[in-house]
Amino acid sequence: MFNADMAEKAASNLARIRLKKPLVHNITNYVVMNYTANALLACGASPVMAHAAEEVEEMVSFAGALVLNIGTLSLPWIDAMLKAGKKANELKVPVILDPVGSGATGLRTNTAKRLIQELAISVIRGNASEIFSLAAGESAARTKGVDSVHSVDQVAGAALTLAKELRTTLAITGAVDLITDGQRTFRVMNGHKMMSNVTGTGCTATAITGAFLAVDPDPVVAATTALAYFGLAGEKSAERAPGPGTFQIALLDALYGMREEALIAGAKIQG
Amino acid sequence: MFNADMAEKAASNLARIRLKKPLVHNITNYVVMNYTANALLACGASPVMAHAAEEVEEMVSFAGALVLNIGTLSLPWIDAMLKAGKKANELKVPVILDPVGSGATGLRTNTAKRLIQELAISVIRGNASEIFSLAAGESAARTKGVDSVHSVDQVAGAALTLAKELRTTLAITGAVDLITDGQRTFRVMNGHKMMSNVTGTGCTATAITGAFLAVDPDPVVAATTALAYFGLAGEKSAERAPGPGTFQIALLDALYGMREEALIAGAKIQG
Amino acid sequence: MFNADMAEKAASNLARIRLKKPLVHNITNYVVMNYTANALLACGASPVMAHAAEEVEEMVSFAGALVLNIGTLSLPWIDAMLKAGKKANELKVPVILDPVGSGATGLRTNTAKRLIQELAISVIRGNASEIFSLAAGESAARTKGVDSVHSVDQVAGAALTLAKELRTTLAITGAVDLITDGQRTFRVMNGHKMMSNVTGTGCTATAITGAFLAVDPDPVVAATTALAYFGLAGEKSAERAPGPGTFQIALLDALYGMREEALIAGAKIQG
Repeated sequence: MFNADMAEKAASNLARIRLKKPLVHNITNYVVMNYTANALLACGASPVMAHAAEEVEEMVSFAGALVLNIGTLSLPWIDAMLKAGKKANELKVPVILDPVGSGATGLRTNTAKRLIQELAISVIRGNASEIFSLAAGESAARTKGVDSVHSVDQVAGAALTLAKELRTTLAITGAVDLITDGQRTFRVMNGHKMMSNVTGTGCTATAITGAFLAVDPDPVVAATTALAYFGLAGEKSAERAPGPGTFQIALLDALYGMREEALIAGAKIQG
Repeated sequence: MFNADMAEKAASNLARIRLKKPLVHNITNYVVMNYTANALLACGASPVMAHAAEEVEEMVSFAGALVLNIGTLSLPWIDAMLKAGKKANELKVPVILDPVGSGATGLRTNTAKRLIQELAISVIRGNASEIFSLAAGESAARTKGVDSVHSVDQVAGAALTLAKELRTTLAITGAVDLITDGQRTFRVMNGHKMMSNVTGTGCTATAITGAFLAVDPDPVVAATTALAYFGLAGEKSAERAPGPGTFQIALLDALYGMREEALIAGAKIQG
Repeated sequence: MFNADMAEKAASNLARIRLKKPLVHNITNYVVMNYTANALLACGASPVMAHAAEEVEEMVSFAGALVLNIGTLSLPWIDAMLKAGKKANELKVPVILDPVGSGATGLRTNTAKRLIQELAISVIRGNASEIFSLAAGESAARTKGVDSVHSVDQVAGAALTLAKELRTTLAITGAVDLITDGQRTFRVMNGHKMMSNVTGTGCTATAITGAFLAVDPDPVVAATTALAYFGLAGEKSAERAPGPGTFQIALLDALYGMREEALIAGAKIQG
């Protein structure tokens, strides 16, 4: 029923992160900086946050992945994202984008689109509304109205088209996560509804995907295995958390304590 | 002894927040962004943080309330607060102000006063020092020296005068919270002293008042019921927390898990 | 084996913080603002975060110590640090610097050096790589290649030279902490390896050292006793924390709940 080969890959990616401790450079929003830094440490990665135009190119040159997150955007940060992203592209450091709130305001939608146009991005991770707000041209009409209230089945076809158009891997998270590069499609059934009661769980999924990209050159596999790991950690945390406060803390413990065998046994990946 | 009608209103406001999940737009300080977002989610509201002048008007147009908090102020943020606030006024979105540190520096006092002068503000939530630093003209002399070391009884008269002068509702929090619009006055006896050992509990009270304003058009009732709910959650958290770390986490769980009947039974509102 | 006099001083410094509740003004990075504010409160100090050039001089005039931390640097913040630092020097408010990431990028190294050159700094707290990146002139050659992978014994001689050259107290934290002003040297054996799995523990050590500087005019003693207190709290937290999430929360409780006798008994200070 579930893809055992991908479950093995999830565990071997996690092992590689713990061994290599890749530096993940984040240009992200103020709300989640602390939590995503802690989540990356809990995975075994080394987080760094740096946003000054004067240093982002130097910083990203040490990194295994660059995470761009537009959650509390302002103009100087957009410049820094473009500068860091171009340097990352030049150095073949994979870039992952979290288009937080794209579709809600012009600034966010336009910035996300500009980043996609000017940079080579390995993975875009968002919810369905955010992802489909990125559609332009041919796919815009097809994706219109396709948002987070639709089922994953309705979303899958539109996602495939959009991934081809944008030439990237899309990771659309929700009750079921959908990952596609326009050719291959995977679904991840891991996760727990308590995750939506904590701020920044989406941003954390993005940051962890960054860590997986730093050790796995295949964006579809990196994103799929990262989301299975993160979702399974969420399931394990929910077991012992009466509310969102204890849950967010238990989630860091679960990321840290996840045994590779537990990940192989618990990953629910289809495709 | 306590106002049963207001306790019922507290519970029905909480129920409405959980049902309607109002978007609360925060332009707030860096220190508390994560915690207040989590507290709003725990209540059932939908937090968004956005501070770029380029998007605040668009963002606030989706919101049920706008929270302005001057805790880590800088000039671009003041512009954003004014822009968002004017749009909110135009759209009849209630605005709540937290004048963090007003009275301590000229920048904070002057900014708080400017926001009050240029915007229609439904509720100002602060401690006594902060609130009385906002006095100008007639009431300045009367409130001089009235600060957080004074008893609520000494403060009440000055607050009434100031609320009339500023044409807003004042929510002065402390061991006992005092809420007045210059006509009606309520007191909330809920809360726990451990709350002062965690950063941003005042800011969180403000954000939660924002959520209550999004579902209750009466600022005095919204602020009073919000503070009873938040204070009672504090009491319940303190029961099982040996220190401020576990307390702040338990507080999120308590906000999330509060049953309406428990709020009706536990709200200690006078007036 | 351990210095009992210094252990007594650690306890009396902690008692003074709890009694006097000194205001600690932080110009620090976005990642750790919330956590260090909570850690300062847990110690008994009063944290304030303020970074606007328009108010830092006024704010620092109320403070018992000024903490400068370059973890998420940008140009306007550098101006604010210089402005606040000069005012602090004028008013004899002790200044502590955390050169986060110095050595990694030019912006960070140059900013740290500039702050050291233009300000009188009481204590610089960092890991060995960060501290030795500050060397210039004579000591640069001697410290070249001395970084966090070297043992404390190898580091001690270079640190002594550098402290003399920079005319400050260096607090180099690691498995063993080394504190020297170029004359006296202390080592602190407290701490736990779990601390490296939580973001901002170094920054928190710096902030707490700020609180100790606010009550103890001797920078070497203030830094040494602060690090013993913080390290011992880390040990106590690790006993009951299965992972980094619960650990960071337990650490706040341990800072808050530390009895003076426990600190006297548990401080492992040599020198």
